[in-house]
Amino acid sequence: MNHHLEQQAAESEKKKVKLLGFWASPYVLRVKWALAMKGVEYEYVEEDLQGKSAELLAYNPVHKKVPVLVYHGRPIAESQVILEFIDDAWSHRGDPILPRDPYQRAMARFWARFQQDKLSPPIWRWFTTEGEEQEAAYEAAVEQLLVLEKELAVSGKPFFGGEKVGFVDLSLGTLAYVIPIYEEIVTGGGGGVKMVTEEKMPSLAAWMGRFLSSPAVRGHLPPLEKLRPRYQAMREWFLVSARAKVEQQQQ
Amino acid sequence: MNHHLEQQAAESEKKKVKLLGFWASPYVLRVKWALAMKGVEYEYVEEDLQGKSAELLAYNPVHKKVPVLVYHGRPIAESQVILEFIDDAWSHRGDPILPRDPYQRAMARFWARFQQDKLSPPIWRWFTTEGEEQEAAYEAAVEQLLVLEKELAVSGKPFFGGEKVGFVDLSLGTLAYVIPIYEEIVTGGGGGVKMVTEEKMPSLAAWMGRFLSSPAVRGHLPPLEKLRPRYQAMREWFLVSARAKVEQQQQ
Repeated sequence: MNHHLEQQAAESEKKKVKLLGFWASPYVLRVKWALAMKGVEYEYVEEDLQGKSAELLAYNPVHKKVPVLVYHGRPIAESQVILEFIDDAWSHRGDPILPRDPYQRAMARFWARFQQDKLSPPIWRWFTTEGEEQEAAYEAAVEQLLVLEKELAVSGKPFFGGEKVGFVDLSLGTLAYVIPIYEEIVTGGGGGVKMVTEEKMPSLAAWMGRFLSSPAVRGHLPPLEKLRPRYQAMREWFLVSARAKVEQQQQ
Repeated sequence: MNHHLEQQAAESEKKKVKLLGFWASPYVLRVKWALAMKGVEYEYVEEDLQGKSAELLAYNPVHKKVPVLVYHGRPIAESQVILEFIDDAWSHRGDPILPRDPYQRAMARFWARFQQDKLSPPIWRWFTTEGEEQEAAYEAAVEQLLVLEKELAVSGKPFFGGEKVGFVDLSLGTLAYVIPIYEEIVTGGGGGVKMVTEEKMPSLAAWMGRFLSSPAVRGHLPPLEKLRPRYQAMREWFLVSARAKVEQQQQ
């Protein structure tokens, strides 16, 4: 295809694929990375989460959340579902997101769910609590991170997807970006306890850097200077709310 | 194939596919139904959940839970992951579990997650609580059930999978079996409030009966007379524990 035809094809695709997102959402980021992996052109619509658009509510009435991918006017919600859709719908293009072998596919799905069900909850608890609750969450998170560390170390591969970024990398990927921010905020930039260290988790620490600098990812990361104060405020809000609750119970 | 060869093939398959399960587990039931849909022969190993086997712990170290499907010695855990694996691995056999069209596949995955994340939690809360907490859970569960009712009514199809049982039916299917038991126990067999009624949810009520009598399902249902006292004891245990907790807080 010459340049003009290529541009026409991209423009035509852009009319058919739309992403409703929010700049700081880790779930939206994943979808952006997957679309970049497949080289899909799309229209991006930034949502105001404090005043959700009629379009978002109509497209995702069950969860009322971003991301929503709209394909030829038909909406798909839930980020991991969207990733699988992108892989199915553009299977002929770019690198596969999921492996083709049924067993390897099952493993990828298993670890993506692990991120969602077992890993993210304690990391989030650690970031949004203090004292004993935070310590317990830290222990739980490290236990699960060590499971991943072992998986990656045993495989000897650069990515969970093997030689290239895949479904598990995309699912875990947001953690690669936010864990360092969480650590910085929790420790106040001081020498406090970190979640992922090169000593305890060498494979995972190396993966984080590798993932964030991979081609489909590096161009689609929200600016740290915008993200940091947002997370800082979020942690404050959770701590203040928790303290108020304790005070109320003591009265 | 003649009968002898068929038997040989089945015996050989049985050596390669093993299911670690527990008779009353709804997650295991789903896998049994999917294997029946595909006509897969397998060895079934009943686990003792109070004393889990070394095999279960080795095969599913992350969750330590049934079901685990073992395929040529390699384990797969998580029931919805197993269903997708069965569909991928025996794609040439029986009816498809997931639709082939990418958009329809995404929809099936969306609704299967809906069952897991949005529907089952309030139904379980309703069954294991009393008083105001139970009433709130009831409202939440009915709200989600009405979403499904609408989906099914609008489609006009006998199953969520269309003309035949599919991924969403298998995922929702255990509810078809346990909701009537929950209702019986919660209302004490009396005229109390039911969760699914023909008046409020005609499509869903009809689907329940249709699903339970479908070929792959009806032969794989644990006996009601064994299941009922088990659930009865479970509800009692939750209520007693909750009451003890309230008493402790009041002291």
